Amino acid sequence: MKNIRFCEAELAEGFWKKRYELNRDVSLACVRDRFEESGRMDALRFKYKTGDSLHFFYDSDVAKWIEAVAYLIEAGNDMHEYEEVIDALIDSMEKHRRSDGYLNSYFQQIEPENVFRDRDKHELYCAGHLMEAAIAYDRATGKGKFLRIVCDYADLIDRVFRQEKTAGFTTSGHPEIELALYKLYAYTGEKRYLLLSEYFVFERHKNVQPCRDFANNKYDQCEMSVYDLALAEGHAVRAVYLYTAMAQLAFERKDAALLEALKRLFADMKKKMYVTGGIGSASVGESFTIDYDLPNLTAYSESCAAIGLAFLCLEMQKFGLNDEYGDIIEKILYNAGLSPVSLDGKKFFYENPLEVRLKEIAKQTSVVSGSQPKLPIPERVELFWCSCCPPNLNRFYARLGDFIFGEEKDGLVVHQYIASACRGLQMETEYALDGKVRLCAAEYNFPYLYVRIPRWAKDFHVSGSAASSDFEKIGGYARIPVAKTFDVVLDFGIRPRFIYADPRVCDDVGRCALAYGPIVYAAESADNGNELNSLLVNTDLTPRAVLNEKYGLYDFCADGEREEIFKDELYSETRPKRSECTIRFIPYFAFANRGKTDMLVWIRHN
Amino acid sequence: MKNIRFCEAELAEGFWKKRYELNRDVSLACVRDRFEESGRMDALRFKYKTGDSLHFFYDSDVAKWIEAVAYLIEAGNDMHEYEEVIDALIDSMEKHRRSDGYLNSYFQQIEPENVFRDRDKHELYCAGHLMEAAIAYDRATGKGKFLRIVCDYADLIDRVFRQEKTAGFTTSGHPEIELALYKLYAYTGEKRYLLLSEYFVFERHKNVQPCRDFANNKYDQCEMSVYDLALAEGHAVRAVYLYTAMAQLAFERKDAALLEALKRLFADMKKKMYVTGGIGSASVGESFTIDYDLPNLTAYSESCAAIGLAFLCLEMQKFGLNDEYGDIIEKILYNAGLSPVSLDGKKFFYENPLEVRLKEIAKQTSVVSGSQPKLPIPERVELFWCSCCPPNLNRFYARLGDFIFGEEKDGLVVHQYIASACRGLQMETEYALDGKVRLCAAEYNFPYLYVRIPRWAKDFHVSGSAASSDFEKIGGYARIPVAKTFDVVLDFGIRPRFIYADPRVCDDVGRCALAYGPIVYAAESADNGNELNSLLVNTDLTPRAVLNEKYGLYDFCADGEREEIFKDELYSETRPKRSECTIRFIPYFAFANRGKTDMLVWIRHN
Repeated sequence: MKNIRFCEAELAEGFWKKRYELNRDVSLACVRDRFEESGRMDALRFKYKTGDSLHFFYDSDVAKWIEAVAYLIEAGNDMHEYEEVIDALIDSMEKHRRSDGYLNSYFQQIEPENVFRDRDKHELYCAGHLMEAAIAYDRATGKGKFLRIVCDYADLIDRVFRQEKTAGFTTSGHPEIELALYKLYAYTGEKRYLLLSEYFVFERHKNVQPCRDFANNKYDQCEMSVYDLALAEGHAVRAVYLYTAMAQLAFERKDAALLEALKRLFADMKKKMYVTGGIGSASVGESFTIDYDLPNLTAYSESCAAIGLAFLCLEMQKFGLNDEYGDIIEKILYNAGLSPVSLDGKKFFYENPLEVRLKEIAKQTSVVSGSQPKLPIPERVELFWCSCCPPNLNRFYARLGDFIFGEEKDGLVVHQYIASACRGLQMETEYALDGKVRLCAAEYNFPYLYVRIPRWAKDFHVSGSAASSDFEKIGGYARIPVAKTFDVVLDFGIRPRFIYADPRVCDDVGRCALAYGPIVYAAESADNGNELNSLLVNTDLTPRAVLNEKYGLYDFCADGEREEIFKDELYSETRPKRSECTIRFIPYFAFANRGKTDMLVWIRHN
Repeated sequence: MKNIRFCEAELAEGFWKKRYELNRDVSLACVRDRFEESGRMDALRFKYKTGDSLHFFYDSDVAKWIEAVAYLIEAGNDMHEYEEVIDALIDSMEKHRRSDGYLNSYFQQIEPENVFRDRDKHELYCAGHLMEAAIAYDRATGKGKFLRIVCDYADLIDRVFRQEKTAGFTTSGHPEIELALYKLYAYTGEKRYLLLSEYFVFERHKNVQPCRDFANNKYDQCEMSVYDLALAEGHAVRAVYLYTAMAQLAFERKDAALLEALKRLFADMKKKMYVTGGIGSASVGESFTIDYDLPNLTAYSESCAAIGLAFLCLEMQKFGLNDEYGDIIEKILYNAGLSPVSLDGKKFFYENPLEVRLKEIAKQTSVVSGSQPKLPIPERVELFWCSCCPPNLNRFYARLGDFIFGEEKDGLVVHQYIASACRGLQMETEYALDGKVRLCAAEYNFPYLYVRIPRWAKDFHVSGSAASSDFEKIGGYARIPVAKTFDVVLDFGIRPRFIYADPRVCDDVGRCALAYGPIVYAAESADNGNELNSLLVNTDLTPRAVLNEKYGLYDFCADGEREEIFKDELYSETRPKRSECTIRFIPYFAFANRGKTDMLVWIRHN
């Protein structure tokens, strides 16, 4: 199966086009402005003066932002203002890079003596992001300069690391260059980039010492050969970036053993994934922990981990029809990958908790100044000290179209239901509102159309053109026979539903999450008053949909009860009294857009 | 009201005499041995050599152990072996103390230049514990030497701190000397010790800077004048030690404003107290946090905080009949103050969690080496680096008799139901088994007998001698008219009961705790298999009592259900299936005596 790139998938009016445009028109500018203010842009202009802020990951931040702009240019958006900024940055890179091709604003300006000597300072990671940005920019603009810069740099890395082995370490501390080198190989056709990617992936577990404070090599994904991996452990972003390179190589090499490792990892990740699609539950080590350990209040669920997982799933889709990956992408698109951006597009979450209790956060600072258990912040901010997530979100939304369509030999494949058009196939849908999708074409050149059946759709119907209901299910997709001209309507029978977690998830026992189609819901104190944990939703009654104009989706009003607080004693032999109430739910991704307020996804039920 | 001291309350055969003897015969020797091995004893022998372990709180550890031995001697137990050890230590103290009376093994041997210069090194705290030990030893043995040593030391402290004000700080970093000085005043009649105690208590909030890593002065109880205190905040042991001195002074001075502050603090503490009587829920700062913040898994509930609270309640009882204090003491005696010692008397808990999940603890070390959220250890140990709790438990049990009886002007008062005899009054009871108490006397010289009505006793009857059922309730006590010779039986209608928490305690919503009389129960995986959070107890059915010979109390078997784990997916639209099961509960204090196992106090209910 082939993925169809975003430039062939034109978004049409609807929920997602609005998000796409918000990213293009608002978020991208906000990130640029913050990056200018914080010195990130100036770092690559090589303007560093003693006392300036210049962190070793700044190059990657800027590269991701460039990559996002490039995708928008390629898709035909007018980005000339940013293009000028980028061209000047590229000129600066060309001018200031070392004569051997080396390019890193941090090492060149701060620690030139330690070039290729410190595995823990994201040097190859930054190189990888520069490569991804350069490929995207080259494809979008045809201006060859940036690509030549990163190819020269890649050639240097190849010589120092793979051929001469004279670097102070063997492989990257934070995976990224592996997947970028594969892309560079795919884009340029230069085999040595494939070899270097393979080298970095397959040598990863050799000659390593645990990174800084870490007890073992799980944190930076060097514990064992990638072929032996079975458990998703350690730093979640490092994990999914490495797995992405593994998936690229498994596909390229037709490497069944590597694919098996990936399948084991997905089976394990499924026991470590929030209902929102978020992964990496612990702030300590920004890491996966153990099966079923999914705390809500301290959920880390980093935005970059969700994005990385979505990109990984995109690679996994190439191995053939398997709705597992589209299902995860959908979860991320509507939940863990959407919650990171405020509704106005200006602010971002790094962590995406499934519960907020402001009192808990207040508690954290009332007594001591240090060593507090880490709780996520309750409101999005414009910039983080470690601001990897905002530009990652920029490029994620800029290539939203990548997630929609694929191509089998006998038909197009619809992975995600986003109003758009691709190669004459029109998709009209308000998927998250009515769960229906209209697909039509006037000149279709395949016998079949493949559509993913969402796992939440228990009642799936196809209507429209003749024979369309005579579909076959393959790997979670419906293979619908279609004529040259067709017009079919998919109805996934959307309805609010309550989701329960395996009782091994201690934080979710006795609780449920409300979902509607792809969207997970949350209750906020802004609607429901304080003490959200005293609420019980009645799952026997159907919540009532209320259109919310702000985001064009439904909120829900559910029947429930509220336990009354005790009058006097802390403990009683009498259960808390209950009174009936209505509980209002909003889409999870929209939480924390009305000031600081408590929030809860997993709510107690009757 | 007067408290009657332990030397007038002779324990009779039963549950508590066994615990008293276990402390005397086993725990005391274990603590002594560990203190010998760890250099604590040698510190006071002034045998320090470079490289030895010698911490600034060692004197207090040894002093508490001496104090425990002294109480046992005073009660007529043969402790001659320990008495020799102690006499030698006292000789060493006399020999090595400075000529001006100063005595601190740490500062004299390690930092002589910093005597009275470092508020954060427990110097006055150690002095206070030496005073308490010396008073107890003097009273027990009549040997004056130790008392003279601490009086000389107290005189020096009085001169340096109160009169000349030449010390590097104004008041103690960790309260203790305040209550000890009051005791020294009460024992010696020397008014200057009262004045110094008052000075330290009333000047406490003046001239202070926050201790080390702390954001404010709440941690070490210096935020405001003691008269203004309204919230129990900061380090829990520091808090209750200070409150104890406040209670002594409020009583001594008939200081109504100070008593009002104490009442406010108790009202606040009641919103911060575990069902076990434990206080101080956070490991960070070993502190009180905010109302209703009572996490079970990370519960700190330090043993010393429970002990300190019990001692505080003893002081509060002097202000007149109020069952609040006896109720808290009872909770501590049977739960948070009993759980710290293993059933064999050899090992101790510092923290007393209300839930143990071994998987969570395993998680803590699997990824990184540092900066983990702090979880209590799942098994007791023989010695801690900071081993304040074990000798505190030694002295707590040694003066167990202090908690039993009081004296009103018109009758004896029974605060705690422990088989014993006092001034001709015999108390026979297996209180925690059958909830009944027989009280009889042949020559009683008061018109009344006061007995505390436990707050759990909803069905209280008095039978026996004529007129005894004609009692009046005063402050939670029954004032029973009695003759010179009487024989009454109290029946508190003991039965298993389920306790619910105010829904503001987020960790306890949808959950209950099983209790029987004074005892809170817990379910362990050793009896109930793993995944204790998948269990639901049926509170409509009465749990069945099963005598456990190990501790002579009932275990309980309750009807309940177990939620089945999911076969495949982590999330489902179907609630977990339930199957009927029996849930075995053991007394909370007995948890973690069968190897490492999960434990849960607050269990989900039907």
